[in-house]
Amino acid sequence: MDLHSLLRELHKRNDSKIVLLVADGLGGLPMEPGGKTELETAHKPNLDALARRGSSGLMTMIKPGITPGSGPGHLAMFGYDPIRYQIGRGALEATGVGFALGPNDVAVRCNFCTLDAQGRITDRRAGRISSEESAPLAIRLRQIKIAGLEVFVEPVKEHRFVVVFRGEGLGDQVTDTDPQATGVPPLDPVGADPASQRTAEAAKEFIRQARQLLADQPHANGLTMRGFAKRPDMPTYEEVYGLRAAAIAVYPMYKGLAQLVGMKVVGSPSSLKEEIDVLEQVWNDFDFFFVHFKYTDSRGEDGNFEAKVRMIEEFDSIVPRVLALKPSVLAVTGDHSTPSKLASHSWHPVPVVIVADSCRPDGCQEFSESAACRGGLGHFEAIYLMPLLLAHAGRLEKFGA
Amino acid sequence: MDLHSLLRELHKRNDSKIVLLVADGLGGLPMEPGGKTELETAHKPNLDALARRGSSGLMTMIKPGITPGSGPGHLAMFGYDPIRYQIGRGALEATGVGFALGPNDVAVRCNFCTLDAQGRITDRRAGRISSEESAPLAIRLRQIKIAGLEVFVEPVKEHRFVVVFRGEGLGDQVTDTDPQATGVPPLDPVGADPASQRTAEAAKEFIRQARQLLADQPHANGLTMRGFAKRPDMPTYEEVYGLRAAAIAVYPMYKGLAQLVGMKVVGSPSSLKEEIDVLEQVWNDFDFFFVHFKYTDSRGEDGNFEAKVRMIEEFDSIVPRVLALKPSVLAVTGDHSTPSKLASHSWHPVPVVIVADSCRPDGCQEFSESAACRGGLGHFEAIYLMPLLLAHAGRLEKFGA
Repeated sequence: MDLHSLLRELHKRNDSKIVLLVADGLGGLPMEPGGKTELETAHKPNLDALARRGSSGLMTMIKPGITPGSGPGHLAMFGYDPIRYQIGRGALEATGVGFALGPNDVAVRCNFCTLDAQGRITDRRAGRISSEESAPLAIRLRQIKIAGLEVFVEPVKEHRFVVVFRGEGLGDQVTDTDPQATGVPPLDPVGADPASQRTAEAAKEFIRQARQLLADQPHANGLTMRGFAKRPDMPTYEEVYGLRAAAIAVYPMYKGLAQLVGMKVVGSPSSLKEEIDVLEQVWNDFDFFFVHFKYTDSRGEDGNFEAKVRMIEEFDSIVPRVLALKPSVLAVTGDHSTPSKLASHSWHPVPVVIVADSCRPDGCQEFSESAACRGGLGHFEAIYLMPLLLAHAGRLEKFGA
Repeated sequence: MDLHSLLRELHKRNDSKIVLLVADGLGGLPMEPGGKTELETAHKPNLDALARRGSSGLMTMIKPGITPGSGPGHLAMFGYDPIRYQIGRGALEATGVGFALGPNDVAVRCNFCTLDAQGRITDRRAGRISSEESAPLAIRLRQIKIAGLEVFVEPVKEHRFVVVFRGEGLGDQVTDTDPQATGVPPLDPVGADPASQRTAEAAKEFIRQARQLLADQPHANGLTMRGFAKRPDMPTYEEVYGLRAAAIAVYPMYKGLAQLVGMKVVGSPSSLKEEIDVLEQVWNDFDFFFVHFKYTDSRGEDGNFEAKVRMIEEFDSIVPRVLALKPSVLAVTGDHSTPSKLASHSWHPVPVVIVADSCRPDGCQEFSESAACRGGLGHFEAIYLMPLLLAHAGRLEKFGA
């Protein structure tokens, strides 16, 4: 029996409120031997107070040594086995621009490219076309009609856009058309089974019409398609945990990931302060609140230790407003580590603190990697965060008599 | 998807060097309540310095409470699920004498025994014949020819020797011929399927010819066969991790275990100092180096606490020579615990320290069981050591986008 089957059976409902505050890429490293991490360097009195009240630990997001992308990191934190539920490239690209994929959708990553008179690719990225130039072209492709299907086109960035085919019985086992080379024409998409052949036919028709619509373009007169993918078939927070869940985020990617597990995206905040405004506004309407803060990751990715420290301090500053709502359970963590030293996501486990009346005190005096390493929650796989939160919220029945 | 599938997908190559220094049976116990373990007693300034620089933890080799044999202990440390990849007795015996088993080989553990005039066993161990007496007899059996197969015979020790049948389509589901009793004749080998019946026929023919060759012997005039086994079908370090791996060991068993996972056995050192000489000589030719030190286990098996302490001190003394090579990642651990107090392998988890630029400091001041228990790597299953080493070497791509 897997974890979700167990939780489907054991969960019950009550009027508790659970808040999951996520600082993206929270975990870090010291820049020099003997130094402190970003989290250990930051002045963060509110987070430290949470550590003194609650129980701390370290989460392994996927498996030891495995560095999570944003998709797998969030799915794991949401309690979904990230190796079982893999989000294909096309689906992640659509999710990343906030497109809410339905069960009958196949999403595809597309690149504008440059074709010569013989239809051979001369530039796989259409001369690195700017977003300002490419977005109107993507929108122009919305004119494309394919019998029996709905087609959606969304600009992404520079030469990239995403196409979604919506219809009954479309498969996603379709080969890429990008030959990964210049001097040759794009490949034809090929479906591995009847459902995917249907998708491949739609893709061919899309490409045919797109070539006509783009014929006047000097650079972006063609396109390639990669990573055909349906969204993974995942049960919702409501089904598995019995939770009405709200997602509060600034960036489309995280709204999209939350939607994949059935959370409702609320508000359209553009800063952390506005995110907490939204939290206050919708407090009575949900049981569970995922609040996402992006900039700890961004500054880590920049390799900017001091800026990441400041972002942690900004994150710390909103904790009192969250506590004022009197959540039954508050958890603070990240979806992966992004040490400034590495300027990238990493495999290092992520500190987590849970605060609830039922927490066992563990002597942690601060919220940090080194304190959490010896915390009461120990080292655990991230998929167990959700059962811990449900337990502290009194939302899980006893297993067996 | 299992761990190896994931690592096949995620590994990449670079010019990093990884060293895995193994002190066999490293973990221990205090002899008296309130005492220290062998590792805690030893003067080991170099290992302690590694603990201050790196991240420590405790590895569970198989599962909590399960004591590993040398085979499963090493396989786990090498990242191979020791429950999935079981090495049959015959294959382990052949491996233990340094015989490189191929994919078409079936290995069998054999005992010389004494038969009476009616062919009944009177002594299952041929009067505990000495190695000096039995080895020439095993070598005499190399005269045996079996049509369509190659046959190899290797002396082991005292009454034990090993036979390897090599040929296409040989199975290893063959019953033992040792009746585990005296006063009865050896059993006929029986194959459970056509491939194994072919092996059983070869075994019968081997026994027939051996009886003729041994007819002049007073004690060792017969033999029994047990533990027919092919080598487990394991992917190599190159396939799974993308590593060119070298194994440096004194004892045949550990060379054999390393060969099973595709490491290349280099040099023929006869001491730890010579092992490090070999390490220095082959440094430019490989990505990964497994260096095995036997005597910590031997002295633990003897129940000789003080001698095991001295072996740990000898092991400590070569660390500076390893560090002088500037490995990107250095890990020090054991394949299991061998507490002198128990004079045997044990299930206790094994301390491990990883040193690399990307280690998160954990406050450990020494390399010991009690310090590692609170280390930054936490308590983890040994099969995750390899992904951690690959990660620290920058040899793993991010999982998902």
